[in-house]
Amino acid sequence: MKTYRRELWFEVPGRRAFINITPQVKDALMESGIQEGLVLVNAMHITASVFINDDERGLHQDYEVWLESLAPHAPISQYQHNRTGEDNADAHMKRQIMGREVVVAITEGKLDFGPWEQIFYGEFDGGRRKRVLIKIIGE
Amino acid sequence: MKTYRRELWFEVPGRRAFINITPQVKDALMESGIQEGLVLVNAMHITASVFINDDERGLHQDYEVWLESLAPHAPISQYQHNRTGEDNADAHMKRQIMGREVVVAITEGKLDFGPWEQIFYGEFDGGRRKRVLIKIIGE
Amino acid sequence: MKTYRRELWFEVPGRRAFINITPQVKDALMESGIQEGLVLVNAMHITASVFINDDERGLHQDYEVWLESLAPHAPISQYQHNRTGEDNADAHMKRQIMGREVVVAITEGKLDFGPWEQIFYGEFDGGRRKRVLIKIIGE
Repeated sequence: MKTYRRELWFEVPGRRAFINITPQVKDALMESGIQEGLVLVNAMHITASVFINDDERGLHQDYEVWLESLAPHAPISQYQHNRTGEDNADAHMKRQIMGREVVVAITEGKLDFGPWEQIFYGEFDGGRRKRVLIKIIGE
Repeated sequence: MKTYRRELWFEVPGRRAFINITPQVKDALMESGIQEGLVLVNAMHITASVFINDDERGLHQDYEVWLESLAPHAPISQYQHNRTGEDNADAHMKRQIMGREVVVAITEGKLDFGPWEQIFYGEFDGGRRKRVLIKIIGE
Repeated sequence: MKTYRRELWFEVPGRRAFINITPQVKDALMESGIQEGLVLVNAMHITASVFINDDERGLHQDYEVWLESLAPHAPISQYQHNRTGEDNADAHMKRQIMGREVVVAITEGKLDFGPWEQIFYGEFDGGRRKRVLIKIIGE
């Protein structure tokens, strides 16, 4: 069995963003030399997500509006968590909707994807340096 | 290490459906001959889900009503994504709630399940041919 | 390849709770002796979750309020599922928001975590004995 590990670093200027990280995951897979196995891609921070969906700008705007309707940022006083001095309780909720991680099959050295699958980093509390972990196991 | 791969194909006549795919996953596991490991089951399309829950018709009706309340299909003009000519933006949201994939432990050649766990394909934008991927790694 | 399996048992007195199970997962990992691989931690019951987030009491209170707003317990007659004699349809929904499982990378014999990641068991229909599965594969 072989394993491979890489971190990706991000510093999103605004509060929220969706970033397509499929090229970096493919690059890590190529460097690993693993032909058959699984790759785990996860946010290492609890106010961010890694998820798979469409790379379409309108959809990302819809996600932004939808997540804000399900877990509004303001008023920040509505959340107990924000009494700790944080203002990011909503980000902990948005992350649960969008998920922490994805696991993707590796077949013949490639991400075994359907036609539109793309991997995204979802930032819900930006303005600081944050990481994504890529871990590959296989042979 | 052994690996095994199978695709399942679906063409749901209506817009939405939940289909129990546990028998097909068990069949793939038996054919793989893998005794200990992990199986990944994921939707290969971004308007569909694979999830684990109860095989109870009333619950599935509840999910249908609940998902429609959280991410309504109509009016389709409420979503930017639908300006691309699609009418399925809501399906991209319903899929995030229900999830893309499940990872299940394999122990002594069987799905290592609790008493009520069943694997479902959740279709949120039917009327076209779509796939689920089963990937097993182990020994 | 090595594999390791352990069950954790819970009996939550009330209906809902969040329990930090990171120490038990670390203990299982140490006992397994696995240095590089993946660990799957999943609820074996369909009205419970395993998820990764912050160990902060205020946030857990926020989750409680938020989940109840997205999928209210009462009136129980609003759900078809409860006509089976159950009163836990809402728990099946809360579990979909919070998720069934997490997959965590193992690197150099440790959970490969960011600074605040902690693993929780989320109970949404307590008062009975329920299980979490830990399955580790690697070498």
